[in-house]
Amino acid sequence: MIGVGIVGATGYTGIELVRLLSRHPEADLVAAASRNYASKMLEEVYPQVSGRMGELVLAGDPAVVVDAAACVFLALPQGEAAPWVAAARRQGKKVIDLSADFRLQNGEVYRQWYRLEPPPADLLAAAVYGLPELHGPVIRESWLVANPGCYPTSAILALAPALSAKIIDPQSIIIDAKSGVTGAGRGLALGSLYPEINEGVHPYQVAAHRHTPEIEQEVGRLAGEQITVSFTPHLIPMSRGILSTVYARLAPGWDTGRVRQVYQEYYAGQPFVRLLPAGTWPHTKWVYGSNGCLLNLAVDSRTGRLVVAAAIDNLVKGASGQAVQNFNIMQGLPPATGLEGSGIFP
Amino acid sequence: MIGVGIVGATGYTGIELVRLLSRHPEADLVAAASRNYASKMLEEVYPQVSGRMGELVLAGDPAVVVDAAACVFLALPQGEAAPWVAAARRQGKKVIDLSADFRLQNGEVYRQWYRLEPPPADLLAAAVYGLPELHGPVIRESWLVANPGCYPTSAILALAPALSAKIIDPQSIIIDAKSGVTGAGRGLALGSLYPEINEGVHPYQVAAHRHTPEIEQEVGRLAGEQITVSFTPHLIPMSRGILSTVYARLAPGWDTGRVRQVYQEYYAGQPFVRLLPAGTWPHTKWVYGSNGCLLNLAVDSRTGRLVVAAAIDNLVKGASGQAVQNFNIMQGLPPATGLEGSGIFP
Amino acid sequence: MIGVGIVGATGYTGIELVRLLSRHPEADLVAAASRNYASKMLEEVYPQVSGRMGELVLAGDPAVVVDAAACVFLALPQGEAAPWVAAARRQGKKVIDLSADFRLQNGEVYRQWYRLEPPPADLLAAAVYGLPELHGPVIRESWLVANPGCYPTSAILALAPALSAKIIDPQSIIIDAKSGVTGAGRGLALGSLYPEINEGVHPYQVAAHRHTPEIEQEVGRLAGEQITVSFTPHLIPMSRGILSTVYARLAPGWDTGRVRQVYQEYYAGQPFVRLLPAGTWPHTKWVYGSNGCLLNLAVDSRTGRLVVAAAIDNLVKGASGQAVQNFNIMQGLPPATGLEGSGIFP
Amino acid sequence: MIGVGIVGATGYTGIELVRLLSRHPEADLVAAASRNYASKMLEEVYPQVSGRMGELVLAGDPAVVVDAAACVFLALPQGEAAPWVAAARRQGKKVIDLSADFRLQNGEVYRQWYRLEPPPADLLAAAVYGLPELHGPVIRESWLVANPGCYPTSAILALAPALSAKIIDPQSIIIDAKSGVTGAGRGLALGSLYPEINEGVHPYQVAAHRHTPEIEQEVGRLAGEQITVSFTPHLIPMSRGILSTVYARLAPGWDTGRVRQVYQEYYAGQPFVRLLPAGTWPHTKWVYGSNGCLLNLAVDSRTGRLVVAAAIDNLVKGASGQAVQNFNIMQGLPPATGLEGSGIFP
Repeated sequence: MIGVGIVGATGYTGIELVRLLSRHPEADLVAAASRNYASKMLEEVYPQVSGRMGELVLAGDPAVVVDAAACVFLALPQGEAAPWVAAARRQGKKVIDLSADFRLQNGEVYRQWYRLEPPPADLLAAAVYGLPELHGPVIRESWLVANPGCYPTSAILALAPALSAKIIDPQSIIIDAKSGVTGAGRGLALGSLYPEINEGVHPYQVAAHRHTPEIEQEVGRLAGEQITVSFTPHLIPMSRGILSTVYARLAPGWDTGRVRQVYQEYYAGQPFVRLLPAGTWPHTKWVYGSNGCLLNLAVDSRTGRLVVAAAIDNLVKGASGQAVQNFNIMQGLPPATGLEGSGIFP
Repeated sequence: MIGVGIVGATGYTGIELVRLLSRHPEADLVAAASRNYASKMLEEVYPQVSGRMGELVLAGDPAVVVDAAACVFLALPQGEAAPWVAAARRQGKKVIDLSADFRLQNGEVYRQWYRLEPPPADLLAAAVYGLPELHGPVIRESWLVANPGCYPTSAILALAPALSAKIIDPQSIIIDAKSGVTGAGRGLALGSLYPEINEGVHPYQVAAHRHTPEIEQEVGRLAGEQITVSFTPHLIPMSRGILSTVYARLAPGWDTGRVRQVYQEYYAGQPFVRLLPAGTWPHTKWVYGSNGCLLNLAVDSRTGRLVVAAAIDNLVKGASGQAVQNFNIMQGLPPATGLEGSGIFP
Repeated sequence: MIGVGIVGATGYTGIELVRLLSRHPEADLVAAASRNYASKMLEEVYPQVSGRMGELVLAGDPAVVVDAAACVFLALPQGEAAPWVAAARRQGKKVIDLSADFRLQNGEVYRQWYRLEPPPADLLAAAVYGLPELHGPVIRESWLVANPGCYPTSAILALAPALSAKIIDPQSIIIDAKSGVTGAGRGLALGSLYPEINEGVHPYQVAAHRHTPEIEQEVGRLAGEQITVSFTPHLIPMSRGILSTVYARLAPGWDTGRVRQVYQEYYAGQPFVRLLPAGTWPHTKWVYGSNGCLLNLAVDSRTGRLVVAAAIDNLVKGASGQAVQNFNIMQGLPPATGLEGSGIFP
Repeated sequence: MIGVGIVGATGYTGIELVRLLSRHPEADLVAAASRNYASKMLEEVYPQVSGRMGELVLAGDPAVVVDAAACVFLALPQGEAAPWVAAARRQGKKVIDLSADFRLQNGEVYRQWYRLEPPPADLLAAAVYGLPELHGPVIRESWLVANPGCYPTSAILALAPALSAKIIDPQSIIIDAKSGVTGAGRGLALGSLYPEINEGVHPYQVAAHRHTPEIEQEVGRLAGEQITVSFTPHLIPMSRGILSTVYARLAPGWDTGRVRQVYQEYYAGQPFVRLLPAGTWPHTKWVYGSNGCLLNLAVDSRTGRLVVAAAIDNLVKGASGQAVQNFNIMQGLPPATGLEGSGIFP
């Protein structure tokens, strides 16, 4: 058993980490911290957490967690991770950071989009972008993983095979994404109130969302050139789930069958990414609570475009589940340890 | 008072027509037909319809409606409108058809996408595409209006000013649309059951939806050339509303302010289409139950693309409300008669 | 046209008043106040409010509204109404107060349940409990109406005929109520966040909700004795609507048919309360956006109990619609003026 | 590993059994049958079921399942279980029946409420009512378990301690229950369509629901006398969950603290039933996907009544999870085997 800890345990990604770690056969949650609920037992904040975990007393100081755990999951607001990453390094601990702080390798890009000071260069240089389907081998060797954003996870998984096979024009990429409301976190905001959200859909931060440079970094890496993408997030009246519908100009001569083959080969052996049968389009509900990513695609011969749809649970494959997957890889465990089983339906 | 009738009064667009006509000061609902509920009173099918209208007895035979009304709203399944349109012509009655049967001017395109026999050529030639913001003057002179589809209404209104001003490349258009579930109608289908829909989002009929040629017809007319568009519909866990997010390559030199001006001028004087202030993106909920269409747009200078979002209520501006708007125009009434007032929020 | 004003125009009941007054043929909204959004135009707060009303500039000071309007709708938090009621009296204006401040005739009961100072006795004595189906004639003569709470409206309407006819034991009443989330208002609260509410139901303030004494006052008045009731409110994942399911021991010898007759006679001539046909149980959705109250009942001969269900829209018949109904009665207008038409479905 | 089978694998309780059994360390799903989807692989019906289980081919004939499995889960419509129970007995197999067929020990009561022929008397006599918290020891010795209904599970667990301690009047019981829509099954029905359900709540089968005699049987057994209860089910716009709010007259002298003690002692050692801290009322969402039952209660000294609320997931503790719990007990396994862990939130 590996002693693990969570800093920021009472946000939505934090509590999802608790749920996933509670059924993990090799992880033992030894400490958790929460700024808002320090000194409370976890079950006082979340009555649904029962048993031994429910009685865990939340620390106010993240240092308690770093000291106690061999591997620390950081689920803090943007701009706060660096000191605890540094502390973990001093103690030779491993870190999986769920914030955006270590995702952008170029600190200036981070500064520009987040209006925050980037982490120190030496820490940043140590971080690996934790999308296991692309970077599994380097994750295995790393002590510091920047866990990807929810939107980027879905968008990059939708695009990676086509970019690797060079069958789409990387400058033509449009990503139209639809997210559940937990993506906005547990903070009090007018726009997250039930009556404002239910029975409605709307875009937000059009052409300005902070996940854009993260997508561009990884997609550019795959394309071998610097690229820009159009990315539009939308809020959907549901708690969990992200669907990214991705459009790009396709090289001539490719039909749906051949492109399907490219995707199947690219993800062969990956336990969590699955191309659905032709004509069965992914529902986010089919990955509710699971670490899966469901894909499908169509070549639109009339317009010469490829359309790919990718569905994930934003709190699992888009956050805490992927963090556990990275944990497994960093520890040399099978990647699906503790993440088996289908989601909950309906 | 003008005597009006509804054929297909118990589907979702039919009952929405009842609601809208019940508050219309110049329309008097004199007859209604329903295949499934013939001989029942309307309030037996929809207990929420009260008063005089609730006691209206539904006819089984559409001929009863055509005979009784001066203007007939047809809300039938695809492929069934033509005989009743012909009957109405013989009696010199006006018709607003809410099906797709008369929307495509090229019968062969209809045959190809709908796998049905198109209406007789002479009837088809008489039909006007009933999007009032584009075709108001011809609607005024017409006796037969093909009421637009819900997706096309939102997509065309999002694109018309940019195409008219020739500031976007018409061959680069991508339409990503999100619809509430009433768009699927009141028929019994596994995919419409609450537990299958709630807490999930999914695309369907990707690159194959029947509203595609309808959009292409009208957008091509605006562009002055034959064009193809990418159109992807998605089902959202809400009853009403469509949001269309539209992408196109923008001509150089245009910024958000100048494009906003183009849109404002195009829709000046239109009572139902409104460009929201910069930065306020439309929520479908803001037009819940109203005939409004809310727009906003952004020029993404990084990618050189224009992004436009359009929100409507699929049952009102996307169907029955637009039908009433067309009725008003055909009768020489102010277009907003009976359609005033904001929607219901929250 | 009567000049009306709203104090507290940007909460959910305030904005619903705006919607309803916008279609009222005899009311002219001349002023509105909002503490949080003073000096903004209404359409800046609620983009869906368009036209002339959208351009109304919100006052910060309620006195502006009292000065400008002939009839003032007060939609303030508990404990704040009295000074503006006093100001209105000085100017001979009429007031409809949507808070609880003037509903309880016994100031001590108010103090005990609300932990607030009750209004001055002379003002309290002037107030009429504004449930038109029970107190129409006194409302007509009054200048100050205490608009009933949402839960009490549904519960009292469910019970009044049976209590008047003395066919139930008034000490045996149990009210199990289910409310949409707008009942909690537009304030920022963890329990109102979408992810906390969706896909769940829960009771709250069991045996302790502040609407209990209000129900007991009116139900006791009908029974002619002091009574206590069990009242349990529940939160339902929907924006609008209240369903109250009411249980009481029935006097022997009454069957469903005879009790139906009692209810039908009691509400004969009332435009908003309707007993549905036997076996058709009310859906709150059938009164979505309307001022209606739908009832049905069953005599359970096995247990000797009467079960009544009452459905209203908590923001309309449970708040703003009833306020407009009271306004109509106070002004000598037909009670349904501006409130006609069925709700929106689906 | 014990070979298990499911007859009726593609309904909502069937697919939930698949989910739960897929993570059960001692059960091996060796066969499954489905009338509607015979010869299909499970993943063709439910794309979210992946891996080995997804490739399971569905039999059309239940006999295939009875032959192959050591323990058979029957998830058939009412009235169909008996032949397969008989077949299982002939082969010495164990059966857990999720229908109502074997729940009512009095065949005449079954005939009266279900309008169906009851199972043969000898089979009926062999059946045990599978509520483990009440009947654990007899379940352990049984080969045939009648898995309780979802409403009865929540209502009986809410009432059992109070009835056992004889602190409530058993003739005064009122059960007001709120259920998610999966309770209506996966069949095509107008009332289960998303637009009919969303944003609304309604009662149904008032004083006439088939779960009434099942509750009365078990509650009567606890009370030691024949009793009748008032039971009103309501449909809530959510997929999963049941909340039962239960009312009864309390014997004098009991306060909330003492009644809490009764409940805590009654459920001491039970892994799935938990009394929440005073003042924390159960949300059904807190047991979403888990086999837990959360309780809380209040003594209303004003009315002399006890109010208890019980929350379960209707598909887990109310159906498939309880079936697995019974399976565990019948096999001599720890009752929580494969059912550990908290539900999914949010």
